[in-house]
Amino acid sequence: MALALEWAAKGMYITAPNPRIGCVIVRDGTVIGAGHTQAAGQAHAEIQALRDAQARGNDVRGATAYVTLEPCSHYGRTPPCSNALIQAGVGRVVAAMVDPNPLVAGRGLAQLEAAGIEVSAGLLAEPAHELNIGFFTRMRHGRPWVRLKTAASLDGVTALDNGESQWITSPQARADGHAWRARASAILTGIGTIKVDNPQLTVRGIDTPLQPRRVIVDSRLDIDLDACILQGEPCWIVAAVPDAEKEAALQALGHEILMLPNASGKVDLPALMRELGRREINELHVEAGSKLNASLVREGCVDELLVYLAPSLVGPGQGMFALPPLAHLADKLPLHFHGVAQVGPDLRILARFKRDEDPKRHA
Amino acid sequence: MALALEWAAKGMYITAPNPRIGCVIVRDGTVIGAGHTQAAGQAHAEIQALRDAQARGNDVRGATAYVTLEPCSHYGRTPPCSNALIQAGVGRVVAAMVDPNPLVAGRGLAQLEAAGIEVSAGLLAEPAHELNIGFFTRMRHGRPWVRLKTAASLDGVTALDNGESQWITSPQARADGHAWRARASAILTGIGTIKVDNPQLTVRGIDTPLQPRRVIVDSRLDIDLDACILQGEPCWIVAAVPDAEKEAALQALGHEILMLPNASGKVDLPALMRELGRREINELHVEAGSKLNASLVREGCVDELLVYLAPSLVGPGQGMFALPPLAHLADKLPLHFHGVAQVGPDLRILARFKRDEDPKRHA
Repeated sequence: MALALEWAAKGMYITAPNPRIGCVIVRDGTVIGAGHTQAAGQAHAEIQALRDAQARGNDVRGATAYVTLEPCSHYGRTPPCSNALIQAGVGRVVAAMVDPNPLVAGRGLAQLEAAGIEVSAGLLAEPAHELNIGFFTRMRHGRPWVRLKTAASLDGVTALDNGESQWITSPQARADGHAWRARASAILTGIGTIKVDNPQLTVRGIDTPLQPRRVIVDSRLDIDLDACILQGEPCWIVAAVPDAEKEAALQALGHEILMLPNASGKVDLPALMRELGRREINELHVEAGSKLNASLVREGCVDELLVYLAPSLVGPGQGMFALPPLAHLADKLPLHFHGVAQVGPDLRILARFKRDEDPKRHA
Repeated sequence: MALALEWAAKGMYITAPNPRIGCVIVRDGTVIGAGHTQAAGQAHAEIQALRDAQARGNDVRGATAYVTLEPCSHYGRTPPCSNALIQAGVGRVVAAMVDPNPLVAGRGLAQLEAAGIEVSAGLLAEPAHELNIGFFTRMRHGRPWVRLKTAASLDGVTALDNGESQWITSPQARADGHAWRARASAILTGIGTIKVDNPQLTVRGIDTPLQPRRVIVDSRLDIDLDACILQGEPCWIVAAVPDAEKEAALQALGHEILMLPNASGKVDLPALMRELGRREINELHVEAGSKLNASLVREGCVDELLVYLAPSLVGPGQGMFALPPLAHLADKLPLHFHGVAQVGPDLRILARFKRDEDPKRHA
């Protein structure tokens, strides 16, 4: 199964909106076929592994297929993998996880079992879940897994008060950040960041066939038509206050406007998350300023912080989150640390929000 | 030698101002004697190991002694260990490091060699250096190794603006902090912290026979005679403005006043570090507020930051260092990360200052 997870990871940048799945077919302790999910509409991992075995002249009858997710049992963009495994005559299927997709949800394994194939599930379930945490969040909650990236000095400063922010962290950390962008289906930013940094928010330096969709929160459609981000692939621009003329100009450049106002005349961020889920965004990567960061956190829209900490002290400056003052420390927003790594000279910290109201959210 | 380092670590809380040294005597791959440095004036590691071998009825003639620091060759509080090793007839001495103490500095090994003993040095030198980084800093530079401890939320906040700071980090992190206090010869704080938190700054929950000396930076002798810290063991109170009456009152309570003014009428912090070196303080543990923290850092008095980061976001509040604003990011104070560990739910980060002017300082 560990090998199947390695195969699954090969699909990191290509399978969206499908999950990244790997399949390894084994007979007598020897791998006789392996594969991973291809781009949407193309072959799933099981089909790839069966084809690989065939191409290598290996007989899969009676062999064991290790697959990082329960084989699908429904006709989606491709025919069901359960059928293919049954027809190929494999003797046993071991799945890391049952598929949370309501169209599958155990039916794949049941169908295999009904065909006389020995099945089991749960082996290395945790890493299998992590690899597709966005897909599973969308299946269970109808919204993406939201990962907010920020970079600060050890004393928590992201920019000087004069706006200078390039660079707090190292080139290695910035390159690592592009890998996290690449695995996301979409990148979210706000009008504040666009005005200050004028970023492209594309993936650079990573070999990926897909560029994440850029999503811009811009309540009053203040964005300058010359902004770098508007010059490339189409963006989704999320606004709260209609402006027919500006909307037409942005649409003429190929961009789409999503009008999602809340009662305060700002963008309804939870509604945006649901809309992004509907649009099959699995992982949403946020790179924004301290104001939008704080709004997303306060409105419960963030699952995970991806924090690069540089080995330096900066002193006064802008923080990661422009939160309101607390009356009591007990009201602080609780997280748990999920992982720490050194990236070049910097630390990369993954921290996840604790949510009492929804313990299964991070299951 | 790894075993000798384990023995050395057993002396963590007892050997000051001497270094923590371990010695293991080996014959034919079998440990026949082992020991570590005792309290100052009592036996060094080599003597303990020779005694251990004798007590176990083992013959050390021709055996190899692994010792984490070059054996001493001078009469200090105890007679030289080199003599004892020669008299015992050991065949070979392997030292992790040459002793930087100018009274030894290679002479111990030379004396052993002159007596026909095979010697070598440098095995596992780095961990041997780390274990006694304070002692070596004092020998080389005449001042302690200064470790500044702070505890903050992931967004860098140590306290709310209303002063509430208990607690940002976990009980586990606070217990870990006591172990770091215990290995220091002295704990430094400032009058600001005493006024706000009224701490004892003793070691609690750690089995140690020595309590670090408490050192208080209090330029104008503002300390309240009822402060908790003044009710226990004698403190060193470091001032800049004489006040005969207050000095007499503090001395009557058993405390000592060090008058170390700089040109601005504040405490001369670098001069204080030299004075603490003269007083045989190996490791100085700082637990102070953001102002004294910043002064120490700006005046080049800090070697290492010991930062506990809690998995929480707090928002506006007090930072770790009240540094002045920078005009350019290039002027940030550079560190490097020395280590990261999870302590309970928190992260413990060790970061060391880079000092271009003195590359050997961290050698």
